[in-house]
Amino acid sequence: MPQLDSGAFFIKRITGQAVTVTADVFSDGHDVVECCVRFKHESDKNWQEVRMQATENDAWTAEFTVEKQGNYTYFVEGWVDYALNWQHGTERKIQDSQHVKSELLEGVEYVNAIVKSADKSEAAYLKNVAKSFASEKDYDKAIEFAMSHDLTAVFKKYPTRLLANRSIDLQVYVDRPKALFSTWYEFFPRSASEIDGKHGTFKDCERLLPRVANMGFDTLYFPPIHPIGEINRKGKNNATNAQPGDVGSPWGIGSKHGGHKATHPELGTIEDFKSLVKKANELGIEVAMDYALQAAPDHPYVKDFPQWFKWRPDGTVQYAENPPKKYQDIQPIYFESGDWKNLWKELLDVALFWIEDCGINIFRVDNPHTKPFYFWGWLIAEIKKKHPDVLFLAEAFTRPKIMNELAKQGFSQSYTYFTWRNSKKELTDYVKELTQTEQKEFYRPNFWPNTPDINPYALQGGNEAVHLQKYFLAATLSSSVGIYGPVFEYMVSAAIPGKEEYLDSEKYEFFKWDWNQTNKLTTVISRINNIRKTHASLQQTNNIVFCDTTNEQIMAYYKFDDSKTDETLMIVNLDPYYPRQATVRLPMESIGNQPVRVHDLITGNSYIWDKEWNFVELHPALPFHLFKIQRS
Amino acid sequence: MPQLDSGAFFIKRITGQAVTVTADVFSDGHDVVECCVRFKHESDKNWQEVRMQATENDAWTAEFTVEKQGNYTYFVEGWVDYALNWQHGTERKIQDSQHVKSELLEGVEYVNAIVKSADKSEAAYLKNVAKSFASEKDYDKAIEFAMSHDLTAVFKKYPTRLLANRSIDLQVYVDRPKALFSTWYEFFPRSASEIDGKHGTFKDCERLLPRVANMGFDTLYFPPIHPIGEINRKGKNNATNAQPGDVGSPWGIGSKHGGHKATHPELGTIEDFKSLVKKANELGIEVAMDYALQAAPDHPYVKDFPQWFKWRPDGTVQYAENPPKKYQDIQPIYFESGDWKNLWKELLDVALFWIEDCGINIFRVDNPHTKPFYFWGWLIAEIKKKHPDVLFLAEAFTRPKIMNELAKQGFSQSYTYFTWRNSKKELTDYVKELTQTEQKEFYRPNFWPNTPDINPYALQGGNEAVHLQKYFLAATLSSSVGIYGPVFEYMVSAAIPGKEEYLDSEKYEFFKWDWNQTNKLTTVISRINNIRKTHASLQQTNNIVFCDTTNEQIMAYYKFDDSKTDETLMIVNLDPYYPRQATVRLPMESIGNQPVRVHDLITGNSYIWDKEWNFVELHPALPFHLFKIQRS
Repeated sequence: MPQLDSGAFFIKRITGQAVTVTADVFSDGHDVVECCVRFKHESDKNWQEVRMQATENDAWTAEFTVEKQGNYTYFVEGWVDYALNWQHGTERKIQDSQHVKSELLEGVEYVNAIVKSADKSEAAYLKNVAKSFASEKDYDKAIEFAMSHDLTAVFKKYPTRLLANRSIDLQVYVDRPKALFSTWYEFFPRSASEIDGKHGTFKDCERLLPRVANMGFDTLYFPPIHPIGEINRKGKNNATNAQPGDVGSPWGIGSKHGGHKATHPELGTIEDFKSLVKKANELGIEVAMDYALQAAPDHPYVKDFPQWFKWRPDGTVQYAENPPKKYQDIQPIYFESGDWKNLWKELLDVALFWIEDCGINIFRVDNPHTKPFYFWGWLIAEIKKKHPDVLFLAEAFTRPKIMNELAKQGFSQSYTYFTWRNSKKELTDYVKELTQTEQKEFYRPNFWPNTPDINPYALQGGNEAVHLQKYFLAATLSSSVGIYGPVFEYMVSAAIPGKEEYLDSEKYEFFKWDWNQTNKLTTVISRINNIRKTHASLQQTNNIVFCDTTNEQIMAYYKFDDSKTDETLMIVNLDPYYPRQATVRLPMESIGNQPVRVHDLITGNSYIWDKEWNFVELHPALPFHLFKIQRS
Repeated sequence: MPQLDSGAFFIKRITGQAVTVTADVFSDGHDVVECCVRFKHESDKNWQEVRMQATENDAWTAEFTVEKQGNYTYFVEGWVDYALNWQHGTERKIQDSQHVKSELLEGVEYVNAIVKSADKSEAAYLKNVAKSFASEKDYDKAIEFAMSHDLTAVFKKYPTRLLANRSIDLQVYVDRPKALFSTWYEFFPRSASEIDGKHGTFKDCERLLPRVANMGFDTLYFPPIHPIGEINRKGKNNATNAQPGDVGSPWGIGSKHGGHKATHPELGTIEDFKSLVKKANELGIEVAMDYALQAAPDHPYVKDFPQWFKWRPDGTVQYAENPPKKYQDIQPIYFESGDWKNLWKELLDVALFWIEDCGINIFRVDNPHTKPFYFWGWLIAEIKKKHPDVLFLAEAFTRPKIMNELAKQGFSQSYTYFTWRNSKKELTDYVKELTQTEQKEFYRPNFWPNTPDINPYALQGGNEAVHLQKYFLAATLSSSVGIYGPVFEYMVSAAIPGKEEYLDSEKYEFFKWDWNQTNKLTTVISRINNIRKTHASLQQTNNIVFCDTTNEQIMAYYKFDDSKTDETLMIVNLDPYYPRQATVRLPMESIGNQPVRVHDLITGNSYIWDKEWNFVELHPALPFHLFKIQRS
């Protein structure tokens, strides 16, 4: 371990993280067994090695750190160490006052076997030892050599590894740190204008970049920016027939203005977009593109590559459907096409165009679960070969094993069920599943309280407290987080009755927002995001311990970075209406049995917590503590 | 699943048992997925197939029965069923009152694709359906066809399996039923004489066969019957130097009289032994040989094949040692020998000699954990190729993962830690580990309350009750059980002080027993063994449910055979001194919520148990119930 599906998939790390390898290593008989982990980056010539340490019940462990992006291979090698075995046995006989002349003669062989491998001074030492073992004189000196720690150390350093045995090759893929720690903001660029009734542009978006940066977001994700289909275009609130002036859904991609390599004319030109990407980068923001593999009926592909679509016996092209529902503005790409090789190549070219020509390094992939798993495995690997910085977020809200499969195929991050987890038990169980099962090795969660497709019941009509609480939970439970704004921070949550869908959704029209408005949410979100930037414990997800509390509405959890130099303790009131009190148990088994000072990074308040159980009261006006743990 | 170490090892079954296969099967998108298990005996030409059923969360299951001894291969195959997919979608559109003429035309392709596979009447039906779908007339008839269960059934029967995908090959090895259900008795043949001071012979053993058969044992296991070494022979109580007349340890194999293919002259000839084996078989008893791969200093191998032993620099041969302990009467075989191929071949020949020339079909293997694992994997496979009836019991009392590895390499049965499990919690935990973890697939336990090497503290000075209780537990918890007698049934338990070793052990001398003596133990053991012969629930180990009781000294468990035609309920008082009372909970979730009659197969008493909790009182004089569950 770690090992996914018998080595069929790689595990994931970011640069600087450790891989802890465990293995059962044993041999027949009572011989001394030794083992190591060998590992190598794809660009390295030679294997590096780290010796494993026995834990219990024939299990061994070792750790290595991955410093470079890309693929590492690792495996476990074990062997019977005959030299150590000999020394161990001889030592026990000497202690039992047996005469070991014959054993010393045997020892000569073990010593001579490693002289060649040893360095100059070690070789001199070994020759000396061998001579003493073989000599008829000075038996005492020889048994002193035989029992010495120096000899053990040299034997350990140069194992002969006769009859060594090894595990299968396993792989770890190493990403840049952003794969693990990222803070996303999504908005519709066509809503970026400040003039009522005017379609927003990339230029308008440039004006909004400082707002995004000031709120502490580092990733700005736009819904598709390509030309929107004109045939069968959707109207407001998903009406089947658009009215004149309706702008359609950005996911209905392609028109006479171009397809996946073009921009929607009303947003601006490719050059405008490149300028926006550049200005964003200057403010520490990366722009994430939507990679949505589908076509409007007037997408140029339909005419140019009819073989990439499914044609019905009546001569029409197959539109998307989930019977009896029909999506006539979208035509799925036919991945079973006989011409799939050219299709895959073109889809790769689309991604490479935005990467190489426009400086895009992050893709949010729309509905990857409706395309072949192997396509994603191939596409992501192909891109990463040339562009290891590129990251992919899987937008698959579907069954658990399908979401896992996509992550195993190589997606850097994945959307999650967080959006629907509300109670303490639901949240705790879900985060434990993500961080304490095999999923922790390959599934990097990105927690979103809302998306343009999901206006969750919990937020519909929700007050300020519930919005504060949801963002706090998302941003402290998971190191990657995102919101679809400004509906989130301005608490626009009107829904289509009975559904988790936004009423008057921006998916089908554009809005005029008062982008300059600040409120409690914009203030607190900014504060949380900026705290995340300077606290390593919040830049990772797996190191989390849930704390007992005496109130079902009060949830508490402790996080720490790998080196335990940063430790935080989060306490949240899940009740959006009433103040709640609880005592919270410090996880002594993790933090040790010493008094600590807990310093609230939001309010600046500090408390000495010198007992196991500690009192808290949290008010809906600020329903959480974000404590930094300080030690004297 | 089941799958051991990524398919590196086979699972085990006996003829007539089922293999339940589960798999996660899913595809991208929303298509209808179908899957099957395919399996084939090594002697079969064609694969058999059983369709899997969906359970929950994308998991599927199917079961197949293994009827023949030997190796079966099985794998899972899954595919998107485009025809069912088409039918499912079309049906929903019809229900939604959509016009489906175009869908019917598509349907023609799916129907035509399977005409060739179908039988005559099905083909006629399909042609009729295709014609109707293609026709401009009688739309109502066509949609009736499209929605019919008949069409679904034919599609299900003849899937086209486009783009099918499959798991790796997995294997199950099927043994004869004795691998799972066996009742062993061990005694030293040299103690078989009824004349004081006279060394027992195979002829003497023949006289004891009816006693063994009457006690209900079906397997008679002898310590090694080969010539005992004369050089460095051990004396009584493991003394380093034998006195004149000392008979030595039977595990010190080989002398001037021969080695592993010879018999000890004082026991008799090969012909005598063959006669014994034959007479035993006539009484339903199989003789199990000891396969102990080691040599006395005067074993013919030492002179004839010196390369099979390790020689020390001083020219002496290496005797067995576990420093600082020395075993000078035994020389281990040097498996790392350069001549290992001839060595392995000779060791195989030894086994084949006893199998082919003397009719031996069961080996108890001495200390297999001190020989290479791969040797056992090879040896057992080689023998089973020609002699699938042959069974191997691994006598490895060592660390858990090593015992597991030997079982995975192919041992049919294994000794266990039962010998040291005394409390209700210890026994329950251990049996759960054996029957409810991966071990249930490959580790067939054989429960022994004692062996010549182990006189457990719990039996030392133990009264009749503790002996009754131990045998009852062994024989009802595990379908394979054995005792080393007659010390067990005659309660001879004097020990070397502070050790779990017999004082005056038969390993180093022979005894004169009063073989005709009967007592409570011989009576009850016979009764239990004969009940086992007619109760299928006791002829298997894995189907067991532990029952709650209100007394820590009262342990209860329910067992059933695969078809649930036989159900038993065991209740044991673990206190050897006092009567104990408890109420015992019937496991309603397993046996159903109906009154049952429990019939004690030992005493003949019956009780109506019509409540969940039922009273019992057990006295040390007969410290258990062995209830047959009867239903009205």
